[in-house]
Amino acid sequence: MRTERLQSLADNVFAVALTLLVLQLPLPHGSHHLAHDLARQWPSYAAYVVSFVTVAIVWINHHALMERIRKIDRSVLEFNLLLLLFVAVIPWPTGLLALYLRNRGQSAVAAVVYGVVMALMAISFAGIYWRLVRGNDLYHPEFKTQIETGVRRALVGPSVYLAGAGIALISAAAAFVLYAFVAIFYGLSERRTQLPGLSASETRAKSSYSAGPGG
Amino acid sequence: MRTERLQSLADNVFAVALTLLVLQLPLPHGSHHLAHDLARQWPSYAAYVVSFVTVAIVWINHHALMERIRKIDRSVLEFNLLLLLFVAVIPWPTGLLALYLRNRGQSAVAAVVYGVVMALMAISFAGIYWRLVRGNDLYHPEFKTQIETGVRRALVGPSVYLAGAGIALISAAAAFVLYAFVAIFYGLSERRTQLPGLSASETRAKSSYSAGPGG
Amino acid sequence: MRTERLQSLADNVFAVALTLLVLQLPLPHGSHHLAHDLARQWPSYAAYVVSFVTVAIVWINHHALMERIRKIDRSVLEFNLLLLLFVAVIPWPTGLLALYLRNRGQSAVAAVVYGVVMALMAISFAGIYWRLVRGNDLYHPEFKTQIETGVRRALVGPSVYLAGAGIALISAAAAFVLYAFVAIFYGLSERRTQLPGLSASETRAKSSYSAGPGG
Amino acid sequence: MRTERLQSLADNVFAVALTLLVLQLPLPHGSHHLAHDLARQWPSYAAYVVSFVTVAIVWINHHALMERIRKIDRSVLEFNLLLLLFVAVIPWPTGLLALYLRNRGQSAVAAVVYGVVMALMAISFAGIYWRLVRGNDLYHPEFKTQIETGVRRALVGPSVYLAGAGIALISAAAAFVLYAFVAIFYGLSERRTQLPGLSASETRAKSSYSAGPGG
Repeated sequence: MRTERLQSLADNVFAVALTLLVLQLPLPHGSHHLAHDLARQWPSYAAYVVSFVTVAIVWINHHALMERIRKIDRSVLEFNLLLLLFVAVIPWPTGLLALYLRNRGQSAVAAVVYGVVMALMAISFAGIYWRLVRGNDLYHPEFKTQIETGVRRALVGPSVYLAGAGIALISAAAAFVLYAFVAIFYGLSERRTQLPGLSASETRAKSSYSAGPGG
Repeated sequence: MRTERLQSLADNVFAVALTLLVLQLPLPHGSHHLAHDLARQWPSYAAYVVSFVTVAIVWINHHALMERIRKIDRSVLEFNLLLLLFVAVIPWPTGLLALYLRNRGQSAVAAVVYGVVMALMAISFAGIYWRLVRGNDLYHPEFKTQIETGVRRALVGPSVYLAGAGIALISAAAAFVLYAFVAIFYGLSERRTQLPGLSASETRAKSSYSAGPGG
Repeated sequence: MRTERLQSLADNVFAVALTLLVLQLPLPHGSHHLAHDLARQWPSYAAYVVSFVTVAIVWINHHALMERIRKIDRSVLEFNLLLLLFVAVIPWPTGLLALYLRNRGQSAVAAVVYGVVMALMAISFAGIYWRLVRGNDLYHPEFKTQIETGVRRALVGPSVYLAGAGIALISAAAAFVLYAFVAIFYGLSERRTQLPGLSASETRAKSSYSAGPGG
Repeated sequence: MRTERLQSLADNVFAVALTLLVLQLPLPHGSHHLAHDLARQWPSYAAYVVSFVTVAIVWINHHALMERIRKIDRSVLEFNLLLLLFVAVIPWPTGLLALYLRNRGQSAVAAVVYGVVMALMAISFAGIYWRLVRGNDLYHPEFKTQIETGVRRALVGPSVYLAGAGIALISAAAAFVLYAFVAIFYGLSERRTQLPGLSASETRAKSSYSAGPGG
């Protein structure tokens, strides 16, 4: 399988998952105080933004990684499909969190589920790196250092999300702030990186992405 | 990141957002006067058409802009993802407006929300232009004049939508007419432009799009 | 705008519309006679198949047409976006027809709406042909005869669907049979055509599609 | 029609179908025992995973097959569209199975429907092989052996799913285990295959996929 085909499926799944998040935004029916009812739904908007930004960053990192891969073996393919399985499922924990974030009794469960799904997504991403490091004919040799740095970074994502799921047991709000922070932090930390823009070969030679929340 | 990859994600998000608009069209269940019940839903059809045309025009302008970009730095990428975040969310204010346009008491709120979301989308688009103008190695030099004209045009979109949100406080119907007019106006104003059709290089050399509602 | 970009947006919209049709298939909740309840839903399955096949044929014809186009002017772009607007909306009349086909009192209205939406889609397709014939620098010259034949064929679609909408006033079932027949008929009538499969240039030289239900 | 265009439509439909599966995951509203209520929904998660993996494997096999095809005639196109029709419908039997797997009285019906839809998908896939074997100018000659092996393997899929539908009449749970096993089995059996990763021509020369559950 050429990486282009897998990238193309991945691009589509990422784009549809990003766009399906909107279906979790509730439309209040027959409201008599629409402004008030919409304002009360703020956890839905917050969850939408955090999930959108997180998935978008995972998409960026996935692309940067794919451009360094020379060939896809069965394991790499399987970890990729596992990643897509969790990317595609994200509208569900997002909707759950939006629905229960204001519910004192049940918000912990929703925030744990959100963190666990995100952790599983991050673990799938780390799996791709893990496989690449073990079979070093799979990537373009000039990326050896970057792939080896990447595998260490890739373990940060799962750890943070599992920590978040732990924190959620005490405070769902604190966990949610952590999830939001992860998205923002990776956004900021990558600002320093100039993205080369001309050609595939240049991208290979110069890009130096960090792994982000999805790995 | 190559512009092709970002364009590909953007194309997918635009296409899915355009197609998800249909889910906001209500299917009356167990109706005994179907023709009447369907006719009463006219705000849904009107909102569908206005949102579809608006998103389609933003897509056209986004493409015209992307073809002039030589490289994508982090800021350009971030404004693009912000734009996609708001494009993906458009089915939601569309459904809200459809639901409340005939509701005298609450239509103002729905029309304000619609205008504000559209304004945020237009601001993200303007952000791309703003960044391009500041870092002029980001676009193909032959487009200097067009990019500089574009940044001024790009401020029209946010202004008009914020004005619409203001008008909505007085009359939701008037605001909706304005939103529809913006889509039609940009459609007509661009009729004069011949779209070159053969190759990427020709497109670069000849195309002279205006920025449209999305910037 | 290059035809490739428009094709890419169109491909995405067609694919998403095809796949969203599934959301109109009802899942009976809490059924005690599931086999019976599923069997009663046969209009949903029939409507799914007819709409899927129709949209798939329109997609085939759209592709065949795009390959003959040399450049896209503003009118061609507008008719294309209008076509996509109606393609994207098809899950809605499909769901409506599925819901009311067994309802004696209201089925006529549902079948009229279905026919009218299909007719509007076919008219948009005919609009592309109409524009191509008027501005003959828009297509590859070797297709002159085919484009001119195409424009006549393209008028068959709207006529048949409007006739169907008329018949629906008397019998929704008869109209639905007509809609199904259109899809099957075009499927069969195109069997004689060999589709060339190697390269774009071969496709241009040899393909001789008929216009199908979408024009 | 070039195989690239059909592949592109197929890729989009596969990706959207994969991602729409998430809409079948229920969000419990107003739950007072969220952890308990989420745990009770395990059939939804199991059905999601089994359908996702199955569709992903069919996508892999579809790609491997398309790369061996030299040209697409009308029959090949029709079997492909039939395949896409059943791929697109899979979220529906998945939701049905999720909803009724724990319902002793009705689970058999749901599991039969799931097996029958999967069998129809597998039959459409087998149809592509059947057509290729009959018209041997349709594929690249170096794949003759593989296509002929493929057609025999392609009959395994429908048989297994029809057997599953039969078993479902006795035990829905046993049938579901079989459906899950098919997905896992094909996943494992293809582990031995190295996927070549560099170029299209290499892929043609070296890839030796088995047909998988979708054929």
